[in-house]
Amino acid sequence: MSEVAVGLDVGGTKALALLVSRDGEVLDELLTPTPHDAEGGAGAATARVLAEQVTTFADRHELDVTTLAIGIGMPGMVRRDGRLAFAPNLQTVSGASFPELLRASLGAQSVYMENDGNCAALGEFAWGAGQGVDNFVMVTLGTGIGGGIIANGELVRGRSGFGGEIGHMVVDARGALCGCGGYGCWERYASGNGLARLAFEWATEGRLPQLTTERGGAQNVRGEDVTTAARRGSAAAGGRMGGVGWWRGRGLANLIAILDSGHFVIGGGLSAAADQLLPSAREFLAELTFGYDKRPPIVVVPSGLTVRAGALGAAKVAFDRQP
Amino acid sequence: MSEVAVGLDVGGTKALALLVSRDGEVLDELLTPTPHDAEGGAGAATARVLAEQVTTFADRHELDVTTLAIGIGMPGMVRRDGRLAFAPNLQTVSGASFPELLRASLGAQSVYMENDGNCAALGEFAWGAGQGVDNFVMVTLGTGIGGGIIANGELVRGRSGFGGEIGHMVVDARGALCGCGGYGCWERYASGNGLARLAFEWATEGRLPQLTTERGGAQNVRGEDVTTAARRGSAAAGGRMGGVGWWRGRGLANLIAILDSGHFVIGGGLSAAADQLLPSAREFLAELTFGYDKRPPIVVVPSGLTVRAGALGAAKVAFDRQP
Repeated sequence: MSEVAVGLDVGGTKALALLVSRDGEVLDELLTPTPHDAEGGAGAATARVLAEQVTTFADRHELDVTTLAIGIGMPGMVRRDGRLAFAPNLQTVSGASFPELLRASLGAQSVYMENDGNCAALGEFAWGAGQGVDNFVMVTLGTGIGGGIIANGELVRGRSGFGGEIGHMVVDARGALCGCGGYGCWERYASGNGLARLAFEWATEGRLPQLTTERGGAQNVRGEDVTTAARRGSAAAGGRMGGVGWWRGRGLANLIAILDSGHFVIGGGLSAAADQLLPSAREFLAELTFGYDKRPPIVVVPSGLTVRAGALGAAKVAFDRQP
Repeated sequence: MSEVAVGLDVGGTKALALLVSRDGEVLDELLTPTPHDAEGGAGAATARVLAEQVTTFADRHELDVTTLAIGIGMPGMVRRDGRLAFAPNLQTVSGASFPELLRASLGAQSVYMENDGNCAALGEFAWGAGQGVDNFVMVTLGTGIGGGIIANGELVRGRSGFGGEIGHMVVDARGALCGCGGYGCWERYASGNGLARLAFEWATEGRLPQLTTERGGAQNVRGEDVTTAARRGSAAAGGRMGGVGWWRGRGLANLIAILDSGHFVIGGGLSAAADQLLPSAREFLAELTFGYDKRPPIVVVPSGLTVRAGALGAAKVAFDRQP
C-alpha cells in the first residue's frame, strides 16, 4: 500500500502533477505545458510529459516508480479500462491508453485513468467541499461544463466509465447547436463559451450599449466583460448575467429531479467568479426545481480544492484502485 | 429473516398486493380499488385497504402480521423515513406515513415505503429485465413518466429519497407548461398525457385529416387513436408517432450522458405498446446521444415484470430493509 500517490490532471493548456499523501496533503507540485504535437502516435508527446513529471517526483523523493500509485485525470470519455475513447479538446491523445504508455516508458505498474470531472468529484468527496456528502454533484464550469456524480457514497462511472457528462444534458432541445453536434446542451448556455456566445448576441442586439461602446464594437464584447460590468453595478450587464444564472439553475434543477442531489460543488475555470455565479443560480432554484418546497435547502458551494481538485482526485483514484 | 414478503403497489385507481417468496415467485395476489376519500385524515382510507390486503394474505397463509416484511410502492415523493412528502395524483394521502399507519392498525413492525418507480427498478433488477445489469434506468411510461436509477448495483435514492424523478427532467426549457408547474418536462412530450396533448395539437393543425374525420372532430382524437392508426399503416399517424419517438429518445439520451446508462427497461401503462415505442426511441438514439459511436450498443427492452414490477419491487424493498 503506497503512502503517497501521484495525481496528474491533463488540461488543454497545462498538465498539473501533484505528489499527494494518503490524507490529501500536497507534498510536491509541477505545472507543465500540455504538448499538442501528434508525433509518435496518439498520446505519445503527452505521455512523455507525464513520465517526466513522475520521474521528477521519484528522483526528488526517492520513490520507486514501478510500484508508485499514479492516477491520471483526462478531459474526455475515459473507458473503464483506462483507454481514452474521445477527447474533443485534446485531439492528439484520442484513443491513447496512458496506463499502457506509462507502463512501457517507466515500468510503472499501477497507473489508472479517469475522466477529469470524475476525478474532481472524488477529490472534493475525499478532501474538499463534498466531504461526508454521500449524494452530490461536482460541476466544473469552464470553457465547457464537466462534472462527476457521487451517489450512495460512490462515483457514478456508468457502464463504460463515461458517467458525469452533465454539460451535454440537453435542456433546450430546439436550441443552439453545440460543439458536440447536439442541440441545446446545458454547456451551450451555462459555460464560459456559453457566456461568450450570449455576450456577443446581447451586444449585437443592442442590449449592452455601454459595453459595446467601451469595447469598440459588439464583436469585441467578451463574456468576462459582462461579468466585470455586472460586478461594477451595470444594470444591463447584471440583468444579462441573471439570464445565465437562470440557465445554470435550469441544469442544476434537472440534476436534482433525476438524482435528488441536494449538494453541488462548483469548480473549474469559472469558479473564481463564484461570488456572482452561485447566488444567481441559487436564486432560480426555487422557481425551477421539481418539488422544491418538499426538499431540505439545496446547498451550492464553491470547490474546496479549486485548481487542484482534478489532480487530487486523480491521486485518490490511484490510492483506491491500486490492489 | 422472512421467507415471504408482501409487496403493495398503490396506483391512482387500483392497489395491487402480492405475496412474494425470496426468489421472486408470486404466491398470492389481490387487486383492490384505491379509495379517494379523505375521511379520517391523510392516507387513512388507503391504509385501511392496504391493511385488509395484508390481513387477507396473513389469514390465507397463516402468517404473523407483526413480523411480516411489508413493502409499499407509492407514486410521489417518498422520504427516506417512509413519509409521503407529496403525491400529485393521490392528494388524499400526501403527508401520510404508511409505515406508521400500518403499525398502528396491524401491529406490523417491518413496513417500508419507497417511490413506485424506484420499486419497479428494484423489481426489474432482482427478477426482471435488469437482472445482473449494475447500471440501468427503469422508465415507467404511463400518464406521466416515472422511473428509478440503478448505479453501481444500487438504487439511487438521493439525499431525501426523491431520486429518479426523470419525467421532470426539463428537455425544452422554453417549452410547454407541465402539471408540476415547470416548463418543458420530458413527460410533457413523451408520456401518455404528452401524446394526448400532441394528438390534439396535430389534429387541430390539420395534420391528421383522416383520423379527425373518423373521430368526428379534432377534439375527439386521442393518443391511442394515433397509435392505432400508425399500427394500421397510416403515414400521417406514423410520422407523428416518430415525433414522439424523437422526444422519448431525447430523454433517454440525456440519461445516457449523465449516468452512462447503457440499458433501459421500459415499463408502465404504455409499455404494452412497446412494439412501437421501443424501435422509434432506439432509432433516434444514434442522432441524439453524446458520443454515440464511442459507446457499446444501447439496450432498450420492455419490462420483464410488466404490471407487477412495482409490487414485486416493493416486496424486494421489504426483504432488503427488514433487519
